This record gives sequence, C-alpha cells and structure tokens, in this order.
Amino acid sequence: MTDTLSTTPTTDAPAAADERSALDVARDEFRAEILAAGLLVDAGQPGLYGRSGLFDDIVDGLCAYVARSFADQKPERYRFAPVMSRDEYELTDYIVSFPQLAGTVNGFRGTDADHRQLIAARERGEAWDPYLVPAETTLVSAVCHPVYERLRGTLPEGGRVINVRGFSFRHEPSNDPMRLQAFRMQELVFLGDPAAAKTFRDVMSQRQVKGLQELGLDAKIVAANDPFFGRTGKFLASNQLADEAKLEVVVKIYGDLDEGTAIASGNHAGAHFGPIFGIDQADGTPAHSSCMAWGLERVTLALLRTHGLDVAAWPESVKADLGLSHVGA
Amino acid sequence: MTDTLSTTPTTDAPAAADERSALDVARDEFRAEILAAGLLVDAGQPGLYGRSGLFDDIVDGLCAYVARSFADQKPERYRFAPVMSRDEYELTDYIVSFPQLAGTVNGFRGTDADHRQLIAARERGEAWDPYLVPAETTLVSAVCHPVYERLRGTLPEGGRVINVRGFSFRHEPSNDPMRLQAFRMQELVFLGDPAAAKTFRDVMSQRQVKGLQELGLDAKIVAANDPFFGRTGKFLASNQLADEAKLEVVVKIYGDLDEGTAIASGNHAGAHFGPIFGIDQADGTPAHSSCMAWGLERVTLALLRTHGLDVAAWPESVKADLGLSHVGA
Repeated sequence: MTDTLSTTPTTDAPAAADERSALDVARDEFRAEILAAGLLVDAGQPGLYGRSGLFDDIVDGLCAYVARSFADQKPERYRFAPVMSRDEYELTDYIVSFPQLAGTVNGFRGTDADHRQLIAARERGEAWDPYLVPAETTLVSAVCHPVYERLRGTLPEGGRVINVRGFSFRHEPSNDPMRLQAFRMQELVFLGDPAAAKTFRDVMSQRQVKGLQELGLDAKIVAANDPFFGRTGKFLASNQLADEAKLEVVVKIYGDLDEGTAIASGNHAGAHFGPIFGIDQADGTPAHSSCMAWGLERVTLALLRTHGLDVAAWPESVKADLGLSHVGA
Repeated sequence: MTDTLSTTPTTDAPAAADERSALDVARDEFRAEILAAGLLVDAGQPGLYGRSGLFDDIVDGLCAYVARSFADQKPERYRFAPVMSRDEYELTDYIVSFPQLAGTVNGFRGTDADHRQLIAARERGEAWDPYLVPAETTLVSAVCHPVYERLRGTLPEGGRVINVRGFSFRHEPSNDPMRLQAFRMQELVFLGDPAAAKTFRDVMSQRQVKGLQELGLDAKIVAANDPFFGRTGKFLASNQLADEAKLEVVVKIYGDLDEGTAIASGNHAGAHFGPIFGIDQADGTPAHSSCMAWGLERVTLALLRTHGLDVAAWPESVKADLGLSHVGA
C-alpha cells in the first residue's frame, strides 16, 4: 500500500525533535527548501500554502500539456468552484467513507441582536461558531464530484469524457509539502458502458504514466487504495486493492524512506456514481465511470525535486513541454 | 450607492412570480441566456456555478491583459488557496463587519465510535453537523486577506506591490448571475507610505476603468461602500462613502433597471491592515495600504453582455487583447 494522492490519513502530529523519523526530517528539509526558494509560501497552517507566480506557471503548463496529450479524447471542459452543493455532497456519501478529510461550510443568518451576542462572545475570548449555521455548500473533496449531477439523464452512445479542474480540500494537516489541505486536481472523467469505463482507466493510466515519465519523472504505476475511515474502512480498502480499482502513479520524493508519493491516479468507480446520480447509458442501464486525476501541486513538486529548484536550469525539452522555455532565457 | 463588487447583501429570496420586479426578471433572463449558451453551468445552489472551458479562457485572457497593463508596477505574484488560516481571518475582523457573507470550515476529529453515531444520525435523517468541530481554516473572503500576514515586518523603501489572484467566498445566494457565492478576484495590493497608498489607488483606478473601457465596456467610476452589517454598519458605510475610500467601476448590465453592477474596485484601506498585521514602512511607522480588484467572473459576464454570447463574433481587437483571436478563426 502506497501513499495515495492526498487521501491517506496523516499521523504528522508534532513529535519531540528526537522522536522524528528520518522521513519526517526529509519532509521538513524539502519543505524548507521549497519555502526558501520562494516557490511555496507558508500560509500559517500545516499543509496550507501560497504559491509563487512561477509555481503556478508550471501548473498552467502542466494543464496545457495534459490537455494536448489527451486531445484525441475530445473532452468537454468544465471547471467548478471550490465549494459545491451540500445536497450533492450528501449523495457522494463522502462523510461516510472519509469523514476525517471532509470540510463543511458554516455561515451566519442571524439578526443584528444575534450578531451583537456573537461579538460579545468573541470579545470575551469565547467561541463564536455557535452563532453560525450550516450553509448550502461544502468544500469540494474530489473535483469530479460536482460533475455527476450535471450529467443526470441518459448519456449519448459512446459515453462522455469530461475535462475538469479545480480545488480540492482535504482536512489532513501535515509537515509534508506533498500533502496540502487545499490543492488543485486536473481530472479526465469517463462515463459510459462498463467495458469502456474499465478500458478508459486502463489505457489512460498507461498514457498518464508515460506522459509523466516524458517530463523526466521516475514514475511507476502501483495498485493502491483510498484511506477509508475506521474499521469498516479497512475492508473497503482491501477490496479496492484486490479489485485494482485504484491505480496510482508514484514518485520516490524521499528516496527509500518510503514507497513513494502518489502524484496521479486512475480510478475505476464502476457502477458507483451512475446509479447515485441517475446517469444512464444509452441503453437505459446505469452508467459506469472511471477517472484519471493529476495532483497539480504534487506533480509540480515532483518536477522540482527531480530537476531542481532553479526552473531556468531544467532540461530544455521539459521546459518546452511545459511552455516554460522563456524562464531564464 | 451602487451595487458593490460582490459585497452588497442580497434580498433575492424567492418571491411569488407576480411579485418579481422588472430587475429580477431581467436577471432571470440573463441567467437563462448564459446557462443556455453553456458558458456557465447551474451547480445546484443559487449563486453557485460551473464554468465552461471557454468562459475560463476569457478569464485567463483577462488576467493576462491586467498583468500586461500593470507590468510597469513590477508586482510580485502570489496565489493563495480558497481557504485561509482562521487565526489570520480573526485578525481581519471580517466576522464583525460582514458576518452575513462569512464562511467558516468545520471538520470531523472524532473516533470510530463517534463516526458510527454520526452515520446513525444521518440515517435517521438528522443533522450530522453536531459531530463536526471548527477546523483551522475559513473560506477566503477577499483574496488580499492571506497576503498581509506574509508581509509582517518592515517594508522596503518605496513599499511593495503584490499581484494576487484566487477564489473568494461570499454567502449571498442570488438569482443574479453577476452575484456568485464563489468567484475569482484579481487584485493588485500596495503597501507603503500614506501618500503613496492614496496615489496608487487614485491613479490605478483611472487606469483600471480605462483598461475596461478599451475592452469595449461602457464603464464608469463611482464612489461606493461595502455592505457593513447591521445598524452600526450604516455609519461605517456612510463614512466610507464620505471618505471616498472605495471606488467602483460599474457597468449597466440591466439597462436603467438599476444603477449598474460593480465589476472592479479601488479600495483605500489606509492604516487599517498595517497595524493589525504588524506591517511597517521603512521608517518604522505603520504601513498604509490600498488595493485594486477585478471581479473576474463579473468582467467576463459584462463582456458577454456587451459583445454578445458568441465569442467568435466579438470585435477582433477585443479578442486580440484577451488572447482569444483563435476563437472562431
């Protein structure tokens, strides 16, 4: 079992300095290097960062590279906000499988008098959250989640391929710069018949890892599982592994200190989302789905780890692939 | 007083069809046109949308246009996540001034047993929010908010100019497609001495409106105020108006049905943020600040309203300015 693309629960609670593992130290060092280079900016909470303009230039180049590489799939492009409808979030059952990663949104709907009480509580140093109520939204956990409700109904013959990109939120504070609380994912989602959904995942996974290798990354595919919560979750995870429902592209960011970090994944959801969201194949039976995901900050950090923090000195071919030839020219 | 850039509290609670004002009807019609054209996608809650790839191509072109237009300011580029540190959110006092717009984040930190209770409550159709607790983050309300803590300390002579872009969240569900719950802002933030902060706002506001006019928008600058909450807020708002602390660039999206919609703004925060975040001028006294903001979805929608929903048919000069010459070519 490997580290997953932003889903493995972290146990990075601060430990006394002498208890820190070699892996923790390696993470701290990489984090310090990235911050010192100004590529990421500490945003005041573990796993929360700002990015430099250059960092996001790499991300933008990567998205364009993915779009070019998979243009033959003729995906429809959609982008969603970092918050989604709570009703749809409920349909995904995310809070059942991954409560430890969830983020919900609260807002204030009170009167002027309620607000005065909120302020008074705040001034006494007390919590003011009790004056808030759940809003109509939650944070998006996987950028494909807001897609499904939009596809309710019957798919065309041959299915649909969606290119979606946006912010994900996972509540997993960490010292590892590879593990962010808020990060961007690029996904390609397929919905259609069962065989096509499986083939899409298998074929595109091979193309995904090859594309990442062509950027110079020492990347390989492994079977993986999501970090389902609790005791029941252990069974779900081992089923997922046995079914090879989840493949990950991993890169050894920290040498042999761990088995590598997932930077991308290929997920065969099968008949999970189709029935939940009322998405049918052209023949009227529930659609199957699969999706390919790139962790945009993780791929970028893997590139920086591999080619160095000085982007101007990256191999010319990699810079050209990512539209970065002007950097340092 | 005009509609502000995403900050005026909305009173768009659903009304019986025959109670809807002509303005409401005009908003509904524009919303329906934008959705029918596939430029925005209804994401299941009032004010929550997905965007088509083409919509975001316009936004990207707009950001590049702003970057070129203000390149002489040599801004440092930073981008932040849609969530920010709750400690810093507290420092902004946003919950005091704009509780009605705020969004906080909750997460689950319980045990396996707690989770079983959460699931049982959910299966009984009860709220499961009571099993969550406040997380370390809140949604970002203004994209400059995560910037200030990063500048703590003493500014260089001449101050600093920051180019920042990201998602804002404002809890104001609406039928108006110009008013989103989650939207992107491009900002240019200045921190330095008092005179320079005021001059920056005044000079850049003129350049801001001119740049938007050059894109074909019938835009003008007006004095405005933020929608401070409650009775006390009324005084703050009228002070802000009297001080001309906030200028807005407005476009009449709905003809003479209202006074126009803000698509951009220039804000003179003066000595507000400097002392709060411990940002000093080179001489050791608290820094003053000002910022210019573009509502990226709003400018894009104003362009669509002005030039039509068929981007291929937009004036060639506008397409060229926004890097869209290939659309329909």
